[in-house]
Amino acid sequence: MPIYDFSLKDLRAYHSDVLPPQDFDAFWQRTLDETRAFPLAAAFEPFESGLKLVEVFDVTFAGFGGHPVKAWLILPRQRSAPLPAVVKFIGYGGGRGFPQDHLLWPAAGYATLVMDTRGQGSTWSKGDTADPVGSDSAHPGSMTRGILSPETYYYRRVFSDAVRAIEAARSHEAIDGGRIAVTGGSQGGGIAIAAAALDPTVKALMPDVPFLCDFPRAVSITPRDPFPEISRFLAVHRDRIEQVFATLNYFDGVCFAARIKASALVSVALMDTVCPPSTIFAAFNALASTDKTLREYGFNDHEGGGAFQERAQLEWLAERL
Amino acid sequence: MPIYDFSLKDLRAYHSDVLPPQDFDAFWQRTLDETRAFPLAAAFEPFESGLKLVEVFDVTFAGFGGHPVKAWLILPRQRSAPLPAVVKFIGYGGGRGFPQDHLLWPAAGYATLVMDTRGQGSTWSKGDTADPVGSDSAHPGSMTRGILSPETYYYRRVFSDAVRAIEAARSHEAIDGGRIAVTGGSQGGGIAIAAAALDPTVKALMPDVPFLCDFPRAVSITPRDPFPEISRFLAVHRDRIEQVFATLNYFDGVCFAARIKASALVSVALMDTVCPPSTIFAAFNALASTDKTLREYGFNDHEGGGAFQERAQLEWLAERL
Amino acid sequence: MPIYDFSLKDLRAYHSDVLPPQDFDAFWQRTLDETRAFPLAAAFEPFESGLKLVEVFDVTFAGFGGHPVKAWLILPRQRSAPLPAVVKFIGYGGGRGFPQDHLLWPAAGYATLVMDTRGQGSTWSKGDTADPVGSDSAHPGSMTRGILSPETYYYRRVFSDAVRAIEAARSHEAIDGGRIAVTGGSQGGGIAIAAAALDPTVKALMPDVPFLCDFPRAVSITPRDPFPEISRFLAVHRDRIEQVFATLNYFDGVCFAARIKASALVSVALMDTVCPPSTIFAAFNALASTDKTLREYGFNDHEGGGAFQERAQLEWLAERL
Amino acid sequence: MPIYDFSLKDLRAYHSDVLPPQDFDAFWQRTLDETRAFPLAAAFEPFESGLKLVEVFDVTFAGFGGHPVKAWLILPRQRSAPLPAVVKFIGYGGGRGFPQDHLLWPAAGYATLVMDTRGQGSTWSKGDTADPVGSDSAHPGSMTRGILSPETYYYRRVFSDAVRAIEAARSHEAIDGGRIAVTGGSQGGGIAIAAAALDPTVKALMPDVPFLCDFPRAVSITPRDPFPEISRFLAVHRDRIEQVFATLNYFDGVCFAARIKASALVSVALMDTVCPPSTIFAAFNALASTDKTLREYGFNDHEGGGAFQERAQLEWLAERL
Amino acid sequence: MPIYDFSLKDLRAYHSDVLPPQDFDAFWQRTLDETRAFPLAAAFEPFESGLKLVEVFDVTFAGFGGHPVKAWLILPRQRSAPLPAVVKFIGYGGGRGFPQDHLLWPAAGYATLVMDTRGQGSTWSKGDTADPVGSDSAHPGSMTRGILSPETYYYRRVFSDAVRAIEAARSHEAIDGGRIAVTGGSQGGGIAIAAAALDPTVKALMPDVPFLCDFPRAVSITPRDPFPEISRFLAVHRDRIEQVFATLNYFDGVCFAARIKASALVSVALMDTVCPPSTIFAAFNALASTDKTLREYGFNDHEGGGAFQERAQLEWLAERL
Amino acid sequence: MPIYDFSLKDLRAYHSDVLPPQDFDAFWQRTLDETRAFPLAAAFEPFESGLKLVEVFDVTFAGFGGHPVKAWLILPRQRSAPLPAVVKFIGYGGGRGFPQDHLLWPAAGYATLVMDTRGQGSTWSKGDTADPVGSDSAHPGSMTRGILSPETYYYRRVFSDAVRAIEAARSHEAIDGGRIAVTGGSQGGGIAIAAAALDPTVKALMPDVPFLCDFPRAVSITPRDPFPEISRFLAVHRDRIEQVFATLNYFDGVCFAARIKASALVSVALMDTVCPPSTIFAAFNALASTDKTLREYGFNDHEGGGAFQERAQLEWLAERL
Repeated sequence: MPIYDFSLKDLRAYHSDVLPPQDFDAFWQRTLDETRAFPLAAAFEPFESGLKLVEVFDVTFAGFGGHPVKAWLILPRQRSAPLPAVVKFIGYGGGRGFPQDHLLWPAAGYATLVMDTRGQGSTWSKGDTADPVGSDSAHPGSMTRGILSPETYYYRRVFSDAVRAIEAARSHEAIDGGRIAVTGGSQGGGIAIAAAALDPTVKALMPDVPFLCDFPRAVSITPRDPFPEISRFLAVHRDRIEQVFATLNYFDGVCFAARIKASALVSVALMDTVCPPSTIFAAFNALASTDKTLREYGFNDHEGGGAFQERAQLEWLAERL
Repeated sequence: MPIYDFSLKDLRAYHSDVLPPQDFDAFWQRTLDETRAFPLAAAFEPFESGLKLVEVFDVTFAGFGGHPVKAWLILPRQRSAPLPAVVKFIGYGGGRGFPQDHLLWPAAGYATLVMDTRGQGSTWSKGDTADPVGSDSAHPGSMTRGILSPETYYYRRVFSDAVRAIEAARSHEAIDGGRIAVTGGSQGGGIAIAAAALDPTVKALMPDVPFLCDFPRAVSITPRDPFPEISRFLAVHRDRIEQVFATLNYFDGVCFAARIKASALVSVALMDTVCPPSTIFAAFNALASTDKTLREYGFNDHEGGGAFQERAQLEWLAERL
Repeated sequence: MPIYDFSLKDLRAYHSDVLPPQDFDAFWQRTLDETRAFPLAAAFEPFESGLKLVEVFDVTFAGFGGHPVKAWLILPRQRSAPLPAVVKFIGYGGGRGFPQDHLLWPAAGYATLVMDTRGQGSTWSKGDTADPVGSDSAHPGSMTRGILSPETYYYRRVFSDAVRAIEAARSHEAIDGGRIAVTGGSQGGGIAIAAAALDPTVKALMPDVPFLCDFPRAVSITPRDPFPEISRFLAVHRDRIEQVFATLNYFDGVCFAARIKASALVSVALMDTVCPPSTIFAAFNALASTDKTLREYGFNDHEGGGAFQERAQLEWLAERL
Repeated sequence: MPIYDFSLKDLRAYHSDVLPPQDFDAFWQRTLDETRAFPLAAAFEPFESGLKLVEVFDVTFAGFGGHPVKAWLILPRQRSAPLPAVVKFIGYGGGRGFPQDHLLWPAAGYATLVMDTRGQGSTWSKGDTADPVGSDSAHPGSMTRGILSPETYYYRRVFSDAVRAIEAARSHEAIDGGRIAVTGGSQGGGIAIAAAALDPTVKALMPDVPFLCDFPRAVSITPRDPFPEISRFLAVHRDRIEQVFATLNYFDGVCFAARIKASALVSVALMDTVCPPSTIFAAFNALASTDKTLREYGFNDHEGGGAFQERAQLEWLAERL
Repeated sequence: MPIYDFSLKDLRAYHSDVLPPQDFDAFWQRTLDETRAFPLAAAFEPFESGLKLVEVFDVTFAGFGGHPVKAWLILPRQRSAPLPAVVKFIGYGGGRGFPQDHLLWPAAGYATLVMDTRGQGSTWSKGDTADPVGSDSAHPGSMTRGILSPETYYYRRVFSDAVRAIEAARSHEAIDGGRIAVTGGSQGGGIAIAAAALDPTVKALMPDVPFLCDFPRAVSITPRDPFPEISRFLAVHRDRIEQVFATLNYFDGVCFAARIKASALVSVALMDTVCPPSTIFAAFNALASTDKTLREYGFNDHEGGGAFQERAQLEWLAERL
Repeated sequence: MPIYDFSLKDLRAYHSDVLPPQDFDAFWQRTLDETRAFPLAAAFEPFESGLKLVEVFDVTFAGFGGHPVKAWLILPRQRSAPLPAVVKFIGYGGGRGFPQDHLLWPAAGYATLVMDTRGQGSTWSKGDTADPVGSDSAHPGSMTRGILSPETYYYRRVFSDAVRAIEAARSHEAIDGGRIAVTGGSQGGGIAIAAAALDPTVKALMPDVPFLCDFPRAVSITPRDPFPEISRFLAVHRDRIEQVFATLNYFDGVCFAARIKASALVSVALMDTVCPPSTIFAAFNALASTDKTLREYGFNDHEGGGAFQERAQLEWLAERL
């Protein structure tokens, strides 16, 4: 698909109109307080991955509502001092899959914790985590589950899980809790942005073609799912438009970005039909970080920078963690 | 799309291999017992529909787990003795919408109760009923929510709601509880089949192009959603195939049909790409009813017989209710 | 499909360049005169609809050229004084179908006349009216039949039929001829606009996502049929562009709107890929009515406001008829 | 698209069940008698084609109902004795276009008459011939115009025009009326088959991937238009199936083929998604000709043999005309 | 597809930013010198075309690298003095096919040489010319073969072949070398532009909807192949963007156009999704010709003006050659 | 896409009719002799991958014709004795990409050599290897390059490269040349099969959803590219069908399989629309191996067994290498 969003010049100057609700910080503080009221209960079961160079643990910890959330912890088998760690989140519809799906950061010498996404994990990689919470009438997919209120919205649970995943990583003796990065592609990048805002001890943030930014624009211009799940929900619930956007404001990457001071390396693809470039520029331009870099991929759709971005991340992170 | 299923001759002779599990009846007896342990609590709130010829009530009753389920009750405004009633279920993804969407049976003089489908109602018509139950990792849509066990499967709740909807109808003074028919198109037809099997007092069954029959064949040959939600789930959860089909056996229209003795008028479309004709012949041929009729529409896809089938139903039902 | 037309702000201010030809009014006066030279010959045959709350008549009247045009007349069975009436026109490709397809307005207490569209009625609902007039070389569909001259253009006949349909309604004793509204969706809305302009006794106009407005813009930007039937015709008849648009000027909803003083309730969908929102704003902004309202549906495609719009219409019309 | 019809072995042995109605020959005799009751009135106007090697005439003759039908007559400019002639019919949706579109047969030394197809000519090449006959409710396109009776069916007029086109060719002094071949691709091939049956003086028949054969099978299995125009018509007019096929029997290439004794060279493409190979084998296998050849193109869709078939035709026809 | 490029007003004023590299002329001079270092070796073998009005030769000549390139030479059989000639190039993916595919210009009295395109000729018409040169990693298709350097780029060979094709035509005794025109559609038009720039003796240039112009814009906005072959290549080779566009500058029709003084008749289609109108206006507006005409087709996609443009060309060329 | 190939029962019993040409073995012996006439010249340049757990070398070796072919060699950084090795080939259109794309086998402790595929590597992962050989007229893509003769066919070069890649691996001191496995998905699997047949010292063969098997059936039934590249080539070159299949017989995985005695673990997906299951069963059933296993994935398309198959391979290979 050809270029359909702003010109590159306008993208670079673009600032979204999205503003956080007045009680944005209070909402999230309360949410995390409630979540942390449950013991973290991080359990690390050895897992036979068939891989000799790494040691793998099947992780369970208590996420939002105390619900059990799964993860993989993958450690270089040869290690001495506590390691810097990368916490990775998964793209939309996928699950944590298997350890061999996540070898980049372990091979680079980082302890790596890969969080499963509750309820997802049945469209392209296997998930093992239930979302025990139901929903009002919702469109198929996760985007509109509980969307009529910030209290019940699906991503309230997921972003809380993400904060707990970082805490689970930090709780493991092999990990140096002061040197943690968060990363992920698409939805994984959107979760990483939220997590970096909600846990200010995170040192580095590396979202690729991040999702969940600048909802009002995204929902109007994005040609491919999952943003249009919301449009289609609103096409049915024609009387809920204001209410839905009021909810989304609590979850917009643009609002989170303005609260982030960690070093950040972001990627954007100018032909991205899933996460329109303007929505990513909106988040990037809002980042409060003084050390931030955006890599633009001029001819890519949602695959983004791929292995090129990974190599840039390896180099960038080595200098920061 | 052209003919892709068996020839008409083979369709008419087709019997599915699907067999109910040994504890099929026990499972459903137990399920209904649990459901009925909650008071029905049917409430009928007058609703301003703007329609002068009918009287409309916004209905709430306790479905599976005692969860509140919504419905419309639409009565001819001019009435005297208790009326025969039609209980109608909705197609996949839709909700109860608004009263004006359901005027056929009221205009024909029947009390009409239209049950909302929990959790659905956000893809083509508005739903108002939550499904407060979460799920293990599931594919977008309803088809695989809780599918790893009959206890947790989504349709366990829906079919129980359907039985309760009939009870709610019967509880209203304007309705003659001995003259109740169930109907619906596609998923609505699949629910009607289950309801007619689970409530033997139902007098007449009119499913149109019913869904949810002969899962093993349907999942292998159906080119369009929602059956393929299950295929795609199994494409990810490659280790769950046996387990999933073990669950589905408890919900297969073919198994329910063998338990139905009510009069039945069924429709099938020979070019149906959503509910393949063989899966409907499988259910029809399994019906234990002695008074059963199948209308075949040779050149239709999933729209089926449309207004032609409605007119056949009006005539057929008038002779039976 | 995402937003592809003007921004909402620009839509609201948009005025089309389309101007009626100098002899626009004369052309239509002459056309109606010719049409009315044939006796209306409205016949009302009782029809067995199977519906107890209404009384149905199979209507035939003489339309353009004196050709027989079919309609349904649906009356509340319980009635006393002459009723206000709604005359309804059908969307592109459909026909009058069956009486049960049109129960909204009868259920609300209005006499309802549903006009069949000549020659159409074979793509989604059944039509029973021939168009006995042939055509020069035309693209499949109705849009380019006779398009090389306003005299021979298909919609000359249809719009004349529509005026006669109102007269047929008015000729029935159960109807109060001073209280007539016209309505319809898509093509039905386009016909309603023409009819309201050509018959100034019409009291209220309720077109939904109306078609046939602002042809020059529509033919250039509309991604889905039927407007592109015209583009494809012009792609073959490259030497007829001017001639075709000269014809279309006589049939443009923008030109008709400027002649309408009836109360008007219009709907538009901002993601409509069949009737682009700008073409509808063009017509709405041109309406001469002092009592006019436009309801905007922000996330809908051509399904428009659906049941939400119907409920708005019920309320709006009750105050005006 | 891959192979979807019978295997080659089964194709070669395939005989359709289609049988002509008892009055098939009488129907056509009467039709031609009525047509010939109008004077042929063939007029040949010189046309400036810009082509030096040929002489072109803009032809008008009286077809069915005496309606004017257009054609091109293209003659080699250098000629002496009367020439053998090729009469060519056009594929679905197209018109006669311009003389330079039809240079193959003139360049090979044949007088060439190209008949316009009434009413068509607005989807891919320009037509100049009106079809002044209207129709009952019809699906967009020509396939269902007047289909409820053989008297009114569109192809009754077209096949009659075709017979008259041959007569028009024969009436020109430059043509040797005893050496006439008919040809055409797709619909053009279907018309050629009908014409060769209805005019037994035709010496040679060269239909390419002919359309309009074995309707019952074609309408059930063909994935691409125009055969599905009929399926979609029947999907709406569910009560007209028998009536429609009763009409089509009068127009089926299989019925015409059994009446043809002219030499025949036919082509078929085994991956043809518009004219399924079985329908063409059905016609070929039914041909009464003793001199008949079928060329099979194993990997082609509806483009068929293209220039390869043309070269085969040039050689084959040179030996027969 | 609707209008997606600039408005007509902006198109007419559009000038591309593309600039030729400093050594553009030197590069091409050197390329032609190298090519001409091989003897032309034009061979004309009589070919049995089955066509009586023309004489056909199967041509072979030495193109770039001395590689054998095939062509057809088609001459009116009746001729006296040397004829003006048209050299025609083929659209993307096609080959020279067969002589009967190219009868327009011979029938109009011109000697006609049709050049095969090396390596192509397997997607819609048959080619007979190898491209014996390999390539670095390339995207399927011709567009990115050797694209990392102007020396190795595929079109360096093709444009050189084109210059040699003109020389081969000129070398035949039946042709008047001072009266040569070049033409072609799409890629054929792009090649014609290059050839007219590289051989200043060409008298007339007639490219239809020409391809290969204004690469930077084309690669960003074109929705259909083959321009997106380059985008997809760059989506993989993310580190080669600058290098690829440095190559393309040597091959851009905009750069060639500025060097052309021959009379020119160009066509453009405003709904062209393969060769966006702006890219063609860019080339047309850059033409140095004083005698230049652009015909705009307002409602056509890549089929452009078709037979209408051919008739315009016949008239235009007769006045210039 | 639903099941479209044989039933599972018939698949398991399916044997292809493909037979190797009489000189099959001689052809390949000669091909390898010619290839080996060039020195292998394997060069291993250290490459900075940013990965601490492995050591990476940028490999170049002489493939077919002595052409330089690229590869990655990835070794566990901590190692002592020579390692067993996995040689991996890449799927259609891709290239060797970057080392981090191939961490599964190194992480499992195997030396891993990943061969680039000449000429490919521009559709989804980056390639760095030229194919310096040109081609006759070919369809876009690799499938028909040089297909008119086994001598010139593209895969003659690729399969020879593959044999040399194994030799390059064996030439490295860190590798135990007696313990080599070959693997790859899709085209990579097809190459692995050829390589295991051509190099009998290979111990284990693990092709996933392998491509390039049973060409005659594949070319007739496969709905998605790249097999249809051949069908489309034959749709143009209608006179080359026999010649093309004569070439393909030298390259069919079915022929190679009959020459393989190595242990084999194969996977097949029953809904695979790229490599139809029957073509893979054809190859599997032809394998001469006594130790062979086929894993069937019932609901997968061409993604096959994914991480499930990888885990099965890890276990299976550990027992055999």
